[in-house]
Amino acid sequence: MSKVIDFQTDPSKYRHWRVEYDGAVANLFMDVDEDGGLFDGYQLKLNSYDLGVDIELADIVQRMRFEHPEVKTVVMQSAKDKVFCAGANIRMLGGAAHSHKVNFCKFTNETRNTFEAAEEDSGQKYVAAVKGACAGGGYELALACNYIMLTDDSTSAVSLPEVPLLAVLPGTGGLTRVTDKRKVRRDRADIFCSVEEGIKGKRAVQWRLVDEAVPNSKFDEIVQQRAEEFAADSKKADVAEGIALGPLAKTVSEEAVTYSLVEIVLDRAGRKATITLNGPDGPAPADMAAFQAQGDQAYMLRLARELDDAILHLRLNEMEVGLLAFRTQGDPGVFADHEAVLANEADHWLANEVRQYWKRILKRVDVTSRSMMAIVEHGSCYTGVLAELLFSVDRSYMMEDEFDGDNRPIAAITLNDDNFGTYPMGNGLTRLETRFLGEPEHVEVLKGHKGEALEAEEADELGLVTMILDDIDWEDEIRIFQQERASFSPDAMTGMEANLRFAGPETMETRIFGRLTAWQNWIFNRPNAVGADGALQRYGSGVRGEYNMERV
Amino acid sequence: MSKVIDFQTDPSKYRHWRVEYDGAVANLFMDVDEDGGLFDGYQLKLNSYDLGVDIELADIVQRMRFEHPEVKTVVMQSAKDKVFCAGANIRMLGGAAHSHKVNFCKFTNETRNTFEAAEEDSGQKYVAAVKGACAGGGYELALACNYIMLTDDSTSAVSLPEVPLLAVLPGTGGLTRVTDKRKVRRDRADIFCSVEEGIKGKRAVQWRLVDEAVPNSKFDEIVQQRAEEFAADSKKADVAEGIALGPLAKTVSEEAVTYSLVEIVLDRAGRKATITLNGPDGPAPADMAAFQAQGDQAYMLRLARELDDAILHLRLNEMEVGLLAFRTQGDPGVFADHEAVLANEADHWLANEVRQYWKRILKRVDVTSRSMMAIVEHGSCYTGVLAELLFSVDRSYMMEDEFDGDNRPIAAITLNDDNFGTYPMGNGLTRLETRFLGEPEHVEVLKGHKGEALEAEEADELGLVTMILDDIDWEDEIRIFQQERASFSPDAMTGMEANLRFAGPETMETRIFGRLTAWQNWIFNRPNAVGADGALQRYGSGVRGEYNMERV
Repeated sequence: MSKVIDFQTDPSKYRHWRVEYDGAVANLFMDVDEDGGLFDGYQLKLNSYDLGVDIELADIVQRMRFEHPEVKTVVMQSAKDKVFCAGANIRMLGGAAHSHKVNFCKFTNETRNTFEAAEEDSGQKYVAAVKGACAGGGYELALACNYIMLTDDSTSAVSLPEVPLLAVLPGTGGLTRVTDKRKVRRDRADIFCSVEEGIKGKRAVQWRLVDEAVPNSKFDEIVQQRAEEFAADSKKADVAEGIALGPLAKTVSEEAVTYSLVEIVLDRAGRKATITLNGPDGPAPADMAAFQAQGDQAYMLRLARELDDAILHLRLNEMEVGLLAFRTQGDPGVFADHEAVLANEADHWLANEVRQYWKRILKRVDVTSRSMMAIVEHGSCYTGVLAELLFSVDRSYMMEDEFDGDNRPIAAITLNDDNFGTYPMGNGLTRLETRFLGEPEHVEVLKGHKGEALEAEEADELGLVTMILDDIDWEDEIRIFQQERASFSPDAMTGMEANLRFAGPETMETRIFGRLTAWQNWIFNRPNAVGADGALQRYGSGVRGEYNMERV
Repeated sequence: MSKVIDFQTDPSKYRHWRVEYDGAVANLFMDVDEDGGLFDGYQLKLNSYDLGVDIELADIVQRMRFEHPEVKTVVMQSAKDKVFCAGANIRMLGGAAHSHKVNFCKFTNETRNTFEAAEEDSGQKYVAAVKGACAGGGYELALACNYIMLTDDSTSAVSLPEVPLLAVLPGTGGLTRVTDKRKVRRDRADIFCSVEEGIKGKRAVQWRLVDEAVPNSKFDEIVQQRAEEFAADSKKADVAEGIALGPLAKTVSEEAVTYSLVEIVLDRAGRKATITLNGPDGPAPADMAAFQAQGDQAYMLRLARELDDAILHLRLNEMEVGLLAFRTQGDPGVFADHEAVLANEADHWLANEVRQYWKRILKRVDVTSRSMMAIVEHGSCYTGVLAELLFSVDRSYMMEDEFDGDNRPIAAITLNDDNFGTYPMGNGLTRLETRFLGEPEHVEVLKGHKGEALEAEEADELGLVTMILDDIDWEDEIRIFQQERASFSPDAMTGMEANLRFAGPETMETRIFGRLTAWQNWIFNRPNAVGADGALQRYGSGVRGEYNMERV
């Protein structure tokens, strides 16, 4: 699996999904092309999926929000007879490297979180209309929809057969959504997750596994009726027209990936990637009307899309890059102007979408399983949403005082309203609240410094950066840290960061990434699942996996 | 590692710890016997520990509460020069089977939770008085104390060097307590967990890693002063005399472990253990004074101690037993009388200790990594605290109507006040609240049924059991479930149960078992840590582990 995985796609390229737009309702059909797998060696039968299928879904969800703001209900359904979705492709899982499996699952989780939150964030409710088998990752797809309808016939069922069939978990949200979203009684959940054939009809309703079981003969009609009811109930304002998301300007070379505003420079020997985010290349639009006229070229949206793609590119294509170093360069004042356009009309549908998108990207950074640092050089532009990066990374280093021969503006950080609630983490707190969990009153102190250009000494005193360094120490300290980080066991880094980054409360979201994923990763390393005689390899052979019976 | 591990000990047998009692203050000295390892193949140098050391500590913590209720402050310290504690023994970890390592860590975690909670539960505050190196599990011991004092000299430091030195995590509470208890800023935590040599003196205070740094010359004096201050501030009532905890009546044979009230019957071929809890063998004492006169022979305490030992025995000695089946037999009315003695004088120090102990045992059941079922037969005794078992296990099966030839009293379940708050789970909710997370109003309904003997049909309607079965189906259904369970991958069971059992909120406690432990277990399976060229094997050789550099 060494080809470059591209996360950019558009409807003209879809092989696995199609959407029919009908006013406030969009009908989303899953129709996976068996021969359209991202890699060789497996067929995507029965609407099973791999990363490629999920990349298309993520693209659809994103376009639904920007290109089709008129949509208020999305009905996810299968275009195939007798099967809704059979889940992640097992041959693909059996053949994939651990690192690919885990990063694939993470992306899948993020996509599900995105359409799950679309109702609250953007007034777009996803409804699963399930006909036929809805198994494993298929039911996990449905679980991430906020309403599940199941046809009540003799064959349609929802199921999580991973444990009995494959000796792995329903690990992309399944177990957690069963207990925490659907709030299924735990002994029933235990039965449900042990029964290969799943649960049907009224019992599925009674057990809270679906919201409604509908007679087969009326299914399509009632699904359409519900979709319209939900659309009518939506609090989403009517929006006539969206904006088009065109292709990104992106150049991939051996040592770099270059976008219009974002640049990745790779140092493979040092196992490091430097990601530079550039400040605005033009003045801010006058208002959201002007912003909308700029469309996908509006600075704040363009920067977001490029950063998002950059992170995904690194995650799936550069497995040995252990450290991501973020840097920014640009005029903080102009950047603040661009942010202010969004903030001033925060209720404008597009302002909301752009800000929600930044929220998602920052969350993606939070759960990126690489060591991350922010470099606050002279000339940098850490204001508002870009300052959030400082509190998302593991460490930040800031230049103090003038540097010999460097005549860029002195390094400074500027907080604004957006650092105090616009972009909550998965745990429901702001990054500053999480950072100062031990001193909640300090967050109040920081509010008093909004709008100030905080130079090194003050930023340090206020606890906003890890370390400030002058011209004498700067290069050495950063080099030492980077080398040290590159020398540590990547596994230990993954485990350490997954624990240190999420202090405080938990949400269903953090539990999926923190608890469920960790147990699944453990199982993905155990011979009972992935060994030569394990369940994944033996699946389909008619012979059950051979298990070491020791309980851990 | 195949010898039977015994969790029973007493001060006459201690090799690693000693306690000096001095009124309201107890001085607890760690003085590990290098040659006193539980297994061969390693020496317990520098106050490093293995399970045997922790078994003694758990015994001390338990006796502190029952035998020494006069104690209000416990000062944990080292009896060795220059080292407080070097953490878990690395040779032991390097040589241990995965299942032993994980179960050892779990027991260690439980012991730490116990002395951490002793302040809130019993008014006994644990203080760590740290002189010398306090590394890894050593600092994790200190972290579980509610006040940490560090001598301010040139060599004493606290550290978590697991990541840089061993490529594993500070995985028995370390990372979680740093972020969630000490609330250390995350970038500082990141540095702290990357620096082999740790952090000293005033910086350790500034970073919230310790509460106080004290000049070496005054250390002992100020420690003693603090201990007395804490004792004076304690809300614990003065209690003149405790009760002695004598040895358990316990017989271990090939197929069974028998106590006075508890019996384990092993079915190794079926990978199952049946644990029978017997009802009272005598009438309830008149009051807590009479209870105290009975001492460790009082029914409610004796049953608790035997059950606790039984679970630990199975966890560490019967690794291939995948299913624990709980059953009770006895007179529910007499059992209720025994419970009522505790409830009626809940503020009596001993009543409180017994109930707090039951809380801990039930939590131990909750996190026991085996499939668990409860069997509600005729003649059973599921009342109050024993009914909690029904809501702790994964599934419960209850006899319905009369069974041919069975003239025991008809199976019934009786709820009382103790099911609604006395024994919260680690997540802070009651087991019934967790069970009915989706229908919180149902918990209120259940309160209306307190004191009623709920037979099968009603128990089923009220959602208290998984399944009710009559004479015709009983044996088959239970056999089928048990066989099915025994056929599944034990790893998948572990992961599934760890996720399904803890719906709802999280606490530091659940995060330690759920998130931190899961990541540590993953790392404990990765070649970077445990492979032939991994860090644990190479430790001490002067050669660093050889790492696969892929990030997962």
